[in-house]
Amino acid sequence: IVSKLPTVGTTIFTKMSALAMEKGAINLSQGFPDFPPDSRLLQRASNALLTGNNQYSPMTGLPILREAIAGLIDRHYDRKVNVLDEVTVTSGASEAIFDTIAALVRQGDEVILFDPAYDLYEPAVTLAGGVCRRVVLTAPDFRPDWNAFEALLTDKTRLVLMNTPHNPTGSCWLAEDLDSLWQAISSRDIYVLSDEVYEFIHFSTNAVSIHKHEKLRERSFVVSSFGKSFHLTGWKVGYVIAPAALTVELRKVHQFITFCTATPLQQALAEHLNECPEESQKLAAFYQQKRDVLRGALAGSRFKLLPCEGTYFQLLDYSDISDLDDVAFCEKLVDQIGIAAIPVSVFYQDAPKNQRLIRLCFAKEESTLIEAARKLCGLS
Amino acid sequence: IVSKLPTVGTTIFTKMSALAMEKGAINLSQGFPDFPPDSRLLQRASNALLTGNNQYSPMTGLPILREAIAGLIDRHYDRKVNVLDEVTVTSGASEAIFDTIAALVRQGDEVILFDPAYDLYEPAVTLAGGVCRRVVLTAPDFRPDWNAFEALLTDKTRLVLMNTPHNPTGSCWLAEDLDSLWQAISSRDIYVLSDEVYEFIHFSTNAVSIHKHEKLRERSFVVSSFGKSFHLTGWKVGYVIAPAALTVELRKVHQFITFCTATPLQQALAEHLNECPEESQKLAAFYQQKRDVLRGALAGSRFKLLPCEGTYFQLLDYSDISDLDDVAFCEKLVDQIGIAAIPVSVFYQDAPKNQRLIRLCFAKEESTLIEAARKLCGLS
Ligand SMILES: CSCCC(=O)C(=O)O
Ligand SMILES: CSCCC(=O)C(=O)O
Repeated sequence: IVSKLPTVGTTIFTKMSALAMEKGAINLSQGFPDFPPDSRLLQRASNALLTGNNQYSPMTGLPILREAIAGLIDRHYDRKVNVLDEVTVTSGASEAIFDTIAALVRQGDEVILFDPAYDLYEPAVTLAGGVCRRVVLTAPDFRPDWNAFEALLTDKTRLVLMNTPHNPTGSCWLAEDLDSLWQAISSRDIYVLSDEVYEFIHFSTNAVSIHKHEKLRERSFVVSSFGKSFHLTGWKVGYVIAPAALTVELRKVHQFITFCTATPLQQALAEHLNECPEESQKLAAFYQQKRDVLRGALAGSRFKLLPCEGTYFQLLDYSDISDLDDVAFCEKLVDQIGIAAIPVSVFYQDAPKNQRLIRLCFAKEESTLIEAARKLCGLS
Repeated sequence: IVSKLPTVGTTIFTKMSALAMEKGAINLSQGFPDFPPDSRLLQRASNALLTGNNQYSPMTGLPILREAIAGLIDRHYDRKVNVLDEVTVTSGASEAIFDTIAALVRQGDEVILFDPAYDLYEPAVTLAGGVCRRVVLTAPDFRPDWNAFEALLTDKTRLVLMNTPHNPTGSCWLAEDLDSLWQAISSRDIYVLSDEVYEFIHFSTNAVSIHKHEKLRERSFVVSSFGKSFHLTGWKVGYVIAPAALTVELRKVHQFITFCTATPLQQALAEHLNECPEESQKLAAFYQQKRDVLRGALAGSRFKLLPCEGTYFQLLDYSDISDLDDVAFCEKLVDQIGIAAIPVSVFYQDAPKNQRLIRLCFAKEESTLIEAARKLCGLS
């Protein structure tokens, strides 16, 4: 059988989590919490399962959940979205991203993304017949170069794929980045897919969202996920906010990919958002504490800590420790000290040669973080 | 925005269910049960949520669930599948079908399907850049004409999309159909996607499965779903069985579309399959009774009942009642007697002019079926 995705293997997340399991390592690789979600939310899900509807939800998502999502957007961004025409529930942010790309990108279209980039963007573009063009971001601040961006624009450019707060670097875009993006694309027929799954996990008051940019949001699909915001990456409930005309196209694809998402889990999330509307406001402080615990505990190590303004990922520069490339270095970490991390080069098509970076996930119990830092400090 | 799917609207299922809701009609349109799933299964799901893992499952599905699926296949078909390499859990059968098509069909490839066909096949082929060729099946028996099939084969034929037991007609393929299919494709580089979501809901001892065909199954993706087999269409947990080399390609797409499926629901299904292995064996008798109740109660009506060998759908011929086309007739049914049904013509690209058929879903409480039949009998 001839592969349509010949260069695609198993994702680094699957590989590293399997390796961590096999070696009994502390798993700071794949991004997921090692603590449980809010027990009130679990109780709501249990009730929804036992006494509620277990059949198809509407294709666009349960109305009560879409209302609650609109409320969430309003509270955080002071943006009023139209529940019927602009909010769609998906089976995780992954499906939302795939749907958007499948709905928009045509054979021969070009998509601009920023490397390092999350691993699902490119295969989705390839399957749609599109081609990726890349703006390369480099340590330590990973700011986009807008001249480089403009140089990539052609008549075939169809979509820009952005992500803030940014996985894997933990950097956040600034208001001026959004303005530069708008300047560059406003006169062209180009859309934006903004992956904002870490929207509530940012530690800088400057962090921005497409939701706050009145012009860009008229061209954008803004994607997020309850997995990140409520510590339940295994529920796979995400959402997309997009203007009505874009939502029509998104839903055409969505209705044929998953049609809808687990009904009782949608019901539970809706009730939780309605009854505990303050929870999402606490998320940044919750993760800032974990970040600071990890950074503090690593202060005495030979790693250099890069800035972390958002997400639950911390980058470490190991160039004072080893000359190995980052994949080999991660293998060594698992083998020698029982820590699983993610090499950053895998997020680049062409990683800068001088970068020696690994990514740690700090969505973990403090005790896990301290134990991991102890091992990393002792690295010889 | 230029649509990639200009001819796609909202699916008939969404439309009819919304109309049924609006008019307070009995909804026999979209296929879903109006009774709850087994309470032991719900209890298992509640336990999994409250005390188990709510984070990502492995991309291929929870190992315990894949083991249980292999056991299910073994019990029903006496087929041993390799759990690691041949079983993949997906977010419903829809995602499984989309994944398979996206993984296999390339720009310009041809896909053969049998009309009437489930509504997601064609858009998935279109998004992959492929073209559908159709063998038209007609009432009352909807048997494929294998000469017509062979006439469609070209060097570009890549995939055959089959479905048995068949939605919307309730017909089942026979062993000779599988043999004819094998004869036609064996010497060519053609794969098969067999949509067997109603695999345990058949009322004829002749019903066949790709799982039992030793040759065809080496070329096939066999798709099924717990939604149909355990009365929980809203959980969206499906699975694909395919030979290792085909599974590799399927998973490349799957890992970038949904990555994985609700972990606690997977856990619950695995435990339920292990602890109540006899449940799936009871499904055919369970639905046969409902079919017979509906057919019995409609015996005095002016509808002609078509044969129903499988699925939970019953076709009715209304040509003795009305000259309206089936879409108009379904609108009339909702308006005049408060019954929502599905017009069969929407499953065809070119519906046979002389067919006047509607589809009723009988996955309903007996009281619902009897009440619906009473209204249909009184139709003037
Ligand atoms: C779906 S596995 C990847 C999880 C994640 O978002 C990450 O680790 O970057
Ligand atoms: C996903 S809605 C369609 C349900 C169904 O399978 C049908 O009614 O045919």
